[in-house]
Amino acid sequence: MSSSRQTPPEAVFDWIDARARERDGAGLRRRLRPRPAETDLLDLASNDYLGLTRDKRVTGAAAAATMRWGAGSTGSRLVTGSTDLHAELELELASFCGAQAALVFSSGYAANLAAVTALSGKDTAIVADQYIHASLIDGCRLSKSDVAVAGHADAGQVAHALATRKAQRALVVTDSVFSVDGDVAPLRELAGTCREHGAALVVDDAHGLGVVGDGGRGAVAAAGLARAADVVTTVTLSKSLGAQGGAVLGPRRVIDHLVNTARTFIFDTGLAPGCAAAALTALRVLREEPERAERARAVAVELATRLRDAGLHTSDPEAAVVSVRAPSPDAAVEWAAACRDAGVHVGCFRPPSVPDKISRLRLTARADLTEADIERAIDVIIRTRPAGE
Amino acid sequence: MSSSRQTPPEAVFDWIDARARERDGAGLRRRLRPRPAETDLLDLASNDYLGLTRDKRVTGAAAAATMRWGAGSTGSRLVTGSTDLHAELELELASFCGAQAALVFSSGYAANLAAVTALSGKDTAIVADQYIHASLIDGCRLSKSDVAVAGHADAGQVAHALATRKAQRALVVTDSVFSVDGDVAPLRELAGTCREHGAALVVDDAHGLGVVGDGGRGAVAAAGLARAADVVTTVTLSKSLGAQGGAVLGPRRVIDHLVNTARTFIFDTGLAPGCAAAALTALRVLREEPERAERARAVAVELATRLRDAGLHTSDPEAAVVSVRAPSPDAAVEWAAACRDAGVHVGCFRPPSVPDKISRLRLTARADLTEADIERAIDVIIRTRPAGE
Repeated sequence: MSSSRQTPPEAVFDWIDARARERDGAGLRRRLRPRPAETDLLDLASNDYLGLTRDKRVTGAAAAATMRWGAGSTGSRLVTGSTDLHAELELELASFCGAQAALVFSSGYAANLAAVTALSGKDTAIVADQYIHASLIDGCRLSKSDVAVAGHADAGQVAHALATRKAQRALVVTDSVFSVDGDVAPLRELAGTCREHGAALVVDDAHGLGVVGDGGRGAVAAAGLARAADVVTTVTLSKSLGAQGGAVLGPRRVIDHLVNTARTFIFDTGLAPGCAAAALTALRVLREEPERAERARAVAVELATRLRDAGLHTSDPEAAVVSVRAPSPDAAVEWAAACRDAGVHVGCFRPPSVPDKISRLRLTARADLTEADIERAIDVIIRTRPAGE
Repeated sequence: MSSSRQTPPEAVFDWIDARARERDGAGLRRRLRPRPAETDLLDLASNDYLGLTRDKRVTGAAAAATMRWGAGSTGSRLVTGSTDLHAELELELASFCGAQAALVFSSGYAANLAAVTALSGKDTAIVADQYIHASLIDGCRLSKSDVAVAGHADAGQVAHALATRKAQRALVVTDSVFSVDGDVAPLRELAGTCREHGAALVVDDAHGLGVVGDGGRGAVAAAGLARAADVVTTVTLSKSLGAQGGAVLGPRRVIDHLVNTARTFIFDTGLAPGCAAAALTALRVLREEPERAERARAVAVELATRLRDAGLHTSDPEAAVVSVRAPSPDAAVEWAAACRDAGVHVGCFRPPSVPDKISRLRLTARADLTEADIERAIDVIIRTRPAGE
């Protein structure tokens, strides 16, 4: 088409300004709002489900590991980035969740990209729940596989897609706990469907670990699938475990395969030692204090029940996340701002962060919320509700 | 094709074993080798170019920040994951490199995925150097753009691809310092070519920051492009800065656009506070001790010159990386193992980690290597050379 399109350098990104105006018009502009170290805000917005990110045992272990091992891992896990700490974390994480082996990544995003891309390819059909996390979607896009999207939590549609696939190999991909509403996928049914059709199952248990199942062993363990030969689980170290990073859990041969082929493992710097130590210590705290998992779930049910009793539209929480419907993106932003002005920090999810385009408040039911905290949160959320909700 | 393909669950991943056997046969199997906290090995394998990852100022700041802010950032940067520390790091990083603004990610991989995907799309042609980092390649794959691959460091081929493109918008993507050989892209020429053709330029300066240019301000700054309206730079916090994480630097409107659209920003947990503090402190150390950058480059030149004088085939280093050719993957592995047995840890790059399929030793010229360290490294590498090299 063109031979020369000389443009002033300043004009090259003019299209960005047009996009920004569109977002402004739709009430979808996002701004960063850095927080201070200490605040009086009541936190119902973070993913610190068990209240461990500031636990002195966890931060103390992270600080000590940083002093001992250095501030970074210094390279790819395949070169200098694997320390004994990473290996210890992998062993304990696999053991806790009941999996054969585990592999730690620098983020849950990287772990999800790795699991999906390394287990798929041109000869594989992928069937994905329509509400899976962005990182799983990106994994599907990178996979070179045919990707079929199944209705949310619809094992029947998954079965149909598997039965009519062209490729020999198949991979079913789902979140366990969906991050927006906190609902749980029908994992046992999906695993059965996979088995009927010779497919593998990849489950993102990011919001399940630490909250769902016996002692917080996660939704995959709760479904009796943690040691299944055909199931691979991904988790994050940045939610219940209060640190940073992610991991893939599964059969040892799958883990060895990831070490050898997963691009986000091979070509990424290993997780910082301090983060590995924090996650390891949080895991040990959770093992010693399993009641934290139960408490997080109970808080979620209490929040949802009482907000629903007040006439709000809430999700039906099976983990530590409760969402509350808002009439529009703008109304959601205003509602969240009003809550914040009243001292309660809630999440505000708008498109594109919500798969169904419905804006919501998102509440985190942290295990360390007191009854007084819960009263205060409920009072503020109800008091600031938009007209019509 | 199929209606039912019932398979024993154990058989679902049998294809993985076949792949493992192929890798074994080709000498390409990788195993993790966790390292202890303390070792007598001389490190020429990490990316700790300036020797800052264990600097007490850096580790002390990371430990203190972890105790003060918590072990994790607790959520997406858009929800609870942005702290004042992140904002401070972004300001100082942009200021140091001479860019208008910066945005911090949990990894360099995530930063590269963000920069490429958020600045491209169906209406954009991408022209990429054939040796770009895996994360940039994945960004291109995720972009939905037409992607043309240009010969390595070949601005003429880039110009041709830009001139003959169909799409209106265009993005040229390159590393500044290529990680395997340590050579530098012709950035000024590429920027000129971009301007002639109305294209934007994305440069991954991961191996340039801290090493190349005045006081280690990076290869983009050295090329006078840090504040250009049409250039976007990505860096890592995990190499010269000794921590973990990555960042995108560029015009403010590009940074705002990333905040609003980049999936690896929106849907990822923010960088852990300890990592942000470590990178910020390392940056300040570098500003106070700019001679570290020069020293790293000088060590690289000394290593390359003396190994070449001994008849080995080395790259011509422009940063802190030197590669030494090996006759085969197996020979490279054996050579690296022999070096390790003799107390020197060198990197060993084999397919698929090398773009041209040539296996190599990869040496890191750390700024804190002493002359005695260099003598020892050179002696060991020469003494253990494979027959024929």
